[in-house]
Amino acid sequence: VVSRTLWLSQQGELCHSISPLNRPTLTIDPGDTVMVETEDAFGGVIRTKDDEFDPLVYRSLDWTSNPLTGPIFVKEAKKGDTLVVEIKDIKPTIGQGVATVLDLLWLLSENATARFLDVKIPAEKVLRRICPIKDRKVYWSEKVVLPYRPMIGEIATAPGAVMPNPGCHGGNMDLPEVSIGSKLFMPVYVPGALLHVGDAHAAQGEAELSGVAIEMPAECTLAVDLIRSKTIRWPRLETADYIMSVASSTTHGASLRDAIRIAFMELVLWLEEEYRFDRWDAYQLCTQVAKVTIGNITCVGAKFPKEYL
Amino acid sequence: VVSRTLWLSQQGELCHSISPLNRPTLTIDPGDTVMVETEDAFGGVIRTKDDEFDPLVYRSLDWTSNPLTGPIFVKEAKKGDTLVVEIKDIKPTIGQGVATVLDLLWLLSENATARFLDVKIPAEKVLRRICPIKDRKVYWSEKVVLPYRPMIGEIATAPGAVMPNPGCHGGNMDLPEVSIGSKLFMPVYVPGALLHVGDAHAAQGEAELSGVAIEMPAECTLAVDLIRSKTIRWPRLETADYIMSVASSTTHGASLRDAIRIAFMELVLWLEEEYRFDRWDAYQLCTQVAKVTIGNITCVGAKFPKEYL
Amino acid sequence: VVSRTLWLSQQGELCHSISPLNRPTLTIDPGDTVMVETEDAFGGVIRTKDDEFDPLVYRSLDWTSNPLTGPIFVKEAKKGDTLVVEIKDIKPTIGQGVATVLDLLWLLSENATARFLDVKIPAEKVLRRICPIKDRKVYWSEKVVLPYRPMIGEIATAPGAVMPNPGCHGGNMDLPEVSIGSKLFMPVYVPGALLHVGDAHAAQGEAELSGVAIEMPAECTLAVDLIRSKTIRWPRLETADYIMSVASSTTHGASLRDAIRIAFMELVLWLEEEYRFDRWDAYQLCTQVAKVTIGNITCVGAKFPKEYL
Amino acid sequence: VVSRTLWLSQQGELCHSISPLNRPTLTIDPGDTVMVETEDAFGGVIRTKDDEFDPLVYRSLDWTSNPLTGPIFVKEAKKGDTLVVEIKDIKPTIGQGVATVLDLLWLLSENATARFLDVKIPAEKVLRRICPIKDRKVYWSEKVVLPYRPMIGEIATAPGAVMPNPGCHGGNMDLPEVSIGSKLFMPVYVPGALLHVGDAHAAQGEAELSGVAIEMPAECTLAVDLIRSKTIRWPRLETADYIMSVASSTTHGASLRDAIRIAFMELVLWLEEEYRFDRWDAYQLCTQVAKVTIGNITCVGAKFPKEYL
Repeated sequence: VVSRTLWLSQQGELCHSISPLNRPTLTIDPGDTVMVETEDAFGGVIRTKDDEFDPLVYRSLDWTSNPLTGPIFVKEAKKGDTLVVEIKDIKPTIGQGVATVLDLLWLLSENATARFLDVKIPAEKVLRRICPIKDRKVYWSEKVVLPYRPMIGEIATAPGAVMPNPGCHGGNMDLPEVSIGSKLFMPVYVPGALLHVGDAHAAQGEAELSGVAIEMPAECTLAVDLIRSKTIRWPRLETADYIMSVASSTTHGASLRDAIRIAFMELVLWLEEEYRFDRWDAYQLCTQVAKVTIGNITCVGAKFPKEYL
Repeated sequence: VVSRTLWLSQQGELCHSISPLNRPTLTIDPGDTVMVETEDAFGGVIRTKDDEFDPLVYRSLDWTSNPLTGPIFVKEAKKGDTLVVEIKDIKPTIGQGVATVLDLLWLLSENATARFLDVKIPAEKVLRRICPIKDRKVYWSEKVVLPYRPMIGEIATAPGAVMPNPGCHGGNMDLPEVSIGSKLFMPVYVPGALLHVGDAHAAQGEAELSGVAIEMPAECTLAVDLIRSKTIRWPRLETADYIMSVASSTTHGASLRDAIRIAFMELVLWLEEEYRFDRWDAYQLCTQVAKVTIGNITCVGAKFPKEYL
Repeated sequence: VVSRTLWLSQQGELCHSISPLNRPTLTIDPGDTVMVETEDAFGGVIRTKDDEFDPLVYRSLDWTSNPLTGPIFVKEAKKGDTLVVEIKDIKPTIGQGVATVLDLLWLLSENATARFLDVKIPAEKVLRRICPIKDRKVYWSEKVVLPYRPMIGEIATAPGAVMPNPGCHGGNMDLPEVSIGSKLFMPVYVPGALLHVGDAHAAQGEAELSGVAIEMPAECTLAVDLIRSKTIRWPRLETADYIMSVASSTTHGASLRDAIRIAFMELVLWLEEEYRFDRWDAYQLCTQVAKVTIGNITCVGAKFPKEYL
Repeated sequence: VVSRTLWLSQQGELCHSISPLNRPTLTIDPGDTVMVETEDAFGGVIRTKDDEFDPLVYRSLDWTSNPLTGPIFVKEAKKGDTLVVEIKDIKPTIGQGVATVLDLLWLLSENATARFLDVKIPAEKVLRRICPIKDRKVYWSEKVVLPYRPMIGEIATAPGAVMPNPGCHGGNMDLPEVSIGSKLFMPVYVPGALLHVGDAHAAQGEAELSGVAIEMPAECTLAVDLIRSKTIRWPRLETADYIMSVASSTTHGASLRDAIRIAFMELVLWLEEEYRFDRWDAYQLCTQVAKVTIGNITCVGAKFPKEYL
């Protein structure tokens, strides 16, 4: 069987949550490559300095997910399998991205605190930046030019039911490592896996301090495959240099520290199960060589260098 | 208009998540009283010491919510209103409840830790207790008899979209104060509010250490009303002695401490907005007289004694 | 041997940290009762609305502890013993207490956030309240009169070396239950135990929202005794109605949730070791009947009702 | 004035806490370079596979700090200044380091949980590894050879009084960036600054999972200088590629997430104060390009790439 390349344009309605109830917009075979058009985190509402944008209205539509393309139904995928998505490319589609400041949720945990303190931040439009992207550079200001380091902020299979976002199924992880050349492994919970994709960033630091990266509409080229009857509990990632376990602090009220703990436990068990490490050796060696990536402030990856596998 | 009393039996399918997509099973007017039959947290599967119960299978059906009755569509309720539910009564329907130990999620944050540590707990069936309930007493063991202090563990309006559970819409709060005589205020996000009810407990301590209270099927008598055009951000509760703001640590990766902070900020702003307190006076007086209730470990209430209102 | 009553006036220098290096100001026998004069949390600097007070200067003197009286050397006490302090009385010594707002550390976790946000709070003096205390009432304002519910905010043995405050040795727990009629058990780490006492409050709510209760100088009557060769890991408390395990989130970067978890584990093990409960029964019964007290936001108590012992 | 090079051998007694009460073991001028001999985190007790080591005894001596050399009194340093320590070199002194597993504190937050769960880990001696270090390589096992990436795990000025460790004064940060070529800035709280140094590691991953890196006695060459009348609130670090703000979660019960928040706020204010960034630009640019390092699980650094300064 020759693997095909399919095109999923972002014409129809965007998904606003990751759900088993979303109707597939494309059906593919394991092994197919899909070019997925994604809209940006603002649903394409902000294209110029002057576009009107009301975050409250926007949020009320659905604040638990970015606008997503899909879901993509992967034939034969069933509960207990693992979906593999290799990211072949991420291209900006309109030659620009947008950065801004919406609120201080991350800083203050909740808007009640901001209200209590009468915190004022400058108007969103004043802080808004339309950043041209060309020749693999992102023009953040006249002086500051960033390298184009694209990534997919939100990608997930559908959970069996409602699940926090991000969660065991992936979701809004905002991990810079979900980038070109990486392979992402996600648990399959429902028939067809139902792959959702969106929220591409042209550049993003760790922790995504303000919650808004360089948000851009993009065309993501994804090679999708299936590992049958292999069950993982949390997403895994393989980059050029690392294997990485992902966990998040949205589940069961876990703290960020709990999430790091979970990610490391999964990493140690992964090393035991697939790379024949003794459990306690893996535990010790992680202590000496592992790295931690903080995605957005709720999601973390524990990374082990491939050179020691 | 005379307010009616309606009956919502638990015959049909239970809801397994709190969702705007759930179809109403009853439509009522504001002012109506409803007697709602609820199934227990195990979906009625455990009635005797010997009933088979597989938590993994059970969870895979939907682990983000207890089995719920409803939703109930409240006519005229619309986004921006507040739904008021006065709890008139909570009766056990089969004269018993069940307590047990399922896993150690709460203790270890995640099962990966348990697997890494090879933690063993006694079999669920061994620890399982079928507790007769009669004459307002719960027979926990031959020696230990608890007072019947019923409460509703999970109650919510439907969020606009996916929301963590518990969250701003209520949900699996497991607050002992959601009991007979209390009035619960919840934000309305969708037309009809879509009230979901379930997970009654015959008794529960604060923090719900093992995650399993005395779980019972129940008949809950609820007087449902509407405050139009009044918008609240988090659930509020009024008991005989306290007003109480509720917040949870499932949202945006907030910690339990963050949740307490959120609940207090909402309480202070509530005192300012409705009880004419100066903001800083309210802040100081809460310091001297407020109480905190930990529901399950993810949900908290900040309480202010009514005598100082 | 007749037990004596001794007097420890607050004339000399106050301790500004809980340390094994502090020189004893009084030596007693196990069984003695001591009337301890304590200064308030502001070192007595604020007595009127107009007294000058600079929190920064004050903090730089020693911000990890309130001004403390002692330490008291308890003869024969040695590492591995448990010190028992029964609180017989707490009397206000100048007929007033002071409440105020110092900063927003609790709300914002750190002053950097406040500086980033340019948060302004009203001047301390404007918010300051001098509250007369008489006839077991605290006059908070012309309208609001609080019941006098005195407690000791900070009480500790000396740790073996530096320890976070609060910590396993007690310290600035700010638990309302450390009140008249309660017995507090603390680990002994150094010869003589070195009991430190201070920071009395005329009233305080749970969580001590602003960080400043009704702070008063006081005379605390303490019956001090020793349980030889009994080692506990965290403070314990016995009130009229409850036994209570204490833990705090200052140790090893534990979260508040971790502290609750620690306190409950200690409570369950206590029930097992001293009250002949099966471990899993204790775990389950705590789930049904336990309460949680949040002291200041870093310290918690898990409480088990004595009626089920 | 010519800067001198001095030698501080580790002959005398080690410090077991970072304290203003520790007597200086060396006095230097600002601008001097010191070669400091440090003992390993086990106080040199473990040199072979067979050496007896009792973590409980060891901890009871002082569990809040590693064995430290110093303090070094820096002439003219006074409260409100900033101490600058440039790390010129870190050499292993006995050609080996030791790695092991002591307990599961990090995993379980507290030993009560381990006791409740009857968690068993293999004996420390079984897991212990004596790792030869030569030619800039660390021989972890027959198969695994790690690059020698030395760092100083604990370095601090003395706080004004008791302070959590790590804290605003530095301490047991376990940040891999505290390495050769880096400049560390720490607040001065007491006359002479009182620099404490110890806990060198031959290699360590982020988060220091088990709590034990490749622990080695070392000779650290430190160029010590002073910035007069410049006050910082938390340690700062300058590496070849980054400027970095440090914060920790041990203070006031802050969570790891709070610590990241604090570190970022300090970083943004630093960019504003010293690099002429607009505050909100700095906030946004950190969002796009910053990195986060997790030291041991309680301490974090927020890093900004120098190329954008």
